[in-house]
Amino acid sequence: MGPELDIMATQLDSAVNAAQRIGELLGVIAFATSGALLAVRKNLDIFGMAVLACSTALGGGVIRDLLVGRTPPAAFTDLTYLSASLLITLVIFFRHPTSRLTRGPLEVADAIGLGLFCVTGTVVAYSHGTGAPTAALLGMVTAIGGGVIRDVLSGQVPSVLRPDQELYAVPALFGAATTAALLHFGAYRAWTGFLAALVAIAVRLLARRFQWRAPLARHTMRPDGTLG
Amino acid sequence: MGPELDIMATQLDSAVNAAQRIGELLGVIAFATSGALLAVRKNLDIFGMAVLACSTALGGGVIRDLLVGRTPPAAFTDLTYLSASLLITLVIFFRHPTSRLTRGPLEVADAIGLGLFCVTGTVVAYSHGTGAPTAALLGMVTAIGGGVIRDVLSGQVPSVLRPDQELYAVPALFGAATTAALLHFGAYRAWTGFLAALVAIAVRLLARRFQWRAPLARHTMRPDGTLG
Amino acid sequence: MGPELDIMATQLDSAVNAAQRIGELLGVIAFATSGALLAVRKNLDIFGMAVLACSTALGGGVIRDLLVGRTPPAAFTDLTYLSASLLITLVIFFRHPTSRLTRGPLEVADAIGLGLFCVTGTVVAYSHGTGAPTAALLGMVTAIGGGVIRDVLSGQVPSVLRPDQELYAVPALFGAATTAALLHFGAYRAWTGFLAALVAIAVRLLARRFQWRAPLARHTMRPDGTLG
Repeated sequence: MGPELDIMATQLDSAVNAAQRIGELLGVIAFATSGALLAVRKNLDIFGMAVLACSTALGGGVIRDLLVGRTPPAAFTDLTYLSASLLITLVIFFRHPTSRLTRGPLEVADAIGLGLFCVTGTVVAYSHGTGAPTAALLGMVTAIGGGVIRDVLSGQVPSVLRPDQELYAVPALFGAATTAALLHFGAYRAWTGFLAALVAIAVRLLARRFQWRAPLARHTMRPDGTLG
Repeated sequence: MGPELDIMATQLDSAVNAAQRIGELLGVIAFATSGALLAVRKNLDIFGMAVLACSTALGGGVIRDLLVGRTPPAAFTDLTYLSASLLITLVIFFRHPTSRLTRGPLEVADAIGLGLFCVTGTVVAYSHGTGAPTAALLGMVTAIGGGVIRDVLSGQVPSVLRPDQELYAVPALFGAATTAALLHFGAYRAWTGFLAALVAIAVRLLARRFQWRAPLARHTMRPDGTLG
Repeated sequence: MGPELDIMATQLDSAVNAAQRIGELLGVIAFATSGALLAVRKNLDIFGMAVLACSTALGGGVIRDLLVGRTPPAAFTDLTYLSASLLITLVIFFRHPTSRLTRGPLEVADAIGLGLFCVTGTVVAYSHGTGAPTAALLGMVTAIGGGVIRDVLSGQVPSVLRPDQELYAVPALFGAATTAALLHFGAYRAWTGFLAALVAIAVRLLARRFQWRAPLARHTMRPDGTLG
């Protein structure tokens, strides 16, 4: 992790670096919570909970690190993130809402992780020397990757595809693109990044609250969607 | 993407490079079409369609690039492929057969993508300095990877596994192995590569048309395939 | 594969290198068997069997190689592993228990692969210069990765998550952590590594035999685990 942090240090000031680390950690905590809560819904045992929480929390960052060529990925070298995910698993194991009530907290946690990771993922990609559009795409992949892994592992169609899940990729892309623009024009600060994350989280939660639906393709008469 | 294109330039003439780029783009278009049509079948909204179309069209190439160590993958740095996938999504969104009739076009598009990507994927791997057998394997993975991602994300057993899907990996391997042999013996040209793709596509479509089935393991009496 | 084998050579003696290769090959054979047997259960044809056997046998190692930055992964450059997987597919195709009886052999094969790969995966990661904790994590990922790919491709919830599957990640982590400790303290020999694998296999099989279950989260009243 040495060289890329050096690059980052030349581009971003130390307040941003501290904020970046805090943002990553909060994102990990949020996604670990969503993974652990889904594990409760699915009646997994404590080890299954740990695997699902860690995959969700660390998966997006691992994909991003592989895509920018940072090996081994930070999740395997800096054990803070893994430890935080395991701690969250323990907390949720002992104190969680009943299975029936986990849905709300799960989706709030997921939205927070989504918003934080689209910003920090873009910053990591950009600090590895990618252009702003590439950084925005990698930021979006970071944000949605963990949730996709969580959903595929637990046998669900990923939120990012489900039409009943309202806008999902859109807030992530919005936050990532905003961050990439801020970086590109030298206006990225700890607080502007935080604001971008906040807006992405807000868009996602408002989409849930008011059920903003995207249009379906016309003429699709059969709602069962079966494939022979 | 600089160094590997240099290597490619020393091995392949410019007509081949142009054909390579055209082949990649057509493969992306074909797989994006198959992903968008499956999304229509599954009643996804327009953003779900875009995610599935892009994952299908770009997924195989991203896997290949990760496997040969080209980071970030071309799909994230050269936005032509992403733009083409999004354009296809829009076209399919507004003009597509009814859900009931999408199956035929979906499978033709998938076959075309399969045939083109097994050739271009092998060429990219070979131009990164792998031996011919490794290049053929990576070409096959490129060809089948996007479809596997599409099917796993949308909750289907991948075509490459389904016995009702007739030969799938075989035409991809055939096209990739032919391409690797052509490259190895210095006989790879734009037209020989195109021919290899065409044969792979034809084998796949003929297998569909005439229901060429591979043998099942003997004594498997229970067709439900359930696992307790 | 040159440089990392050099590194390994400086750290490990040649007996360890030979044992490492044998362990990898046996692990590949065990996982290929588990993949091919699951394919029989699922009534896949011979090509589907080959794809599932190879994905299971080579998937964990490919993930590990990507995570440590070894590209192309060994599975694509050293064709021994692929050939062994295809040979196993043929053997299982012609000689296998009836579908109803495949479960026992499948789980024994899976346990053997799990135990061998958690050790060899840790050694490969460590020989690439990662610290002992990172090596242990990568070893665990190597061990469980192939089975996760097998289960996701064939449409099952991965063993590593299922509460009815008793301890799965735990023996893998145990074997990997033991191996990392042995390497760290210079006590890794062919026989100590073999012992670590054996203990991991034994723990996994004993957990199966005596149904050692990990605790579920409290208050999870609904055993169906459905998500709306």
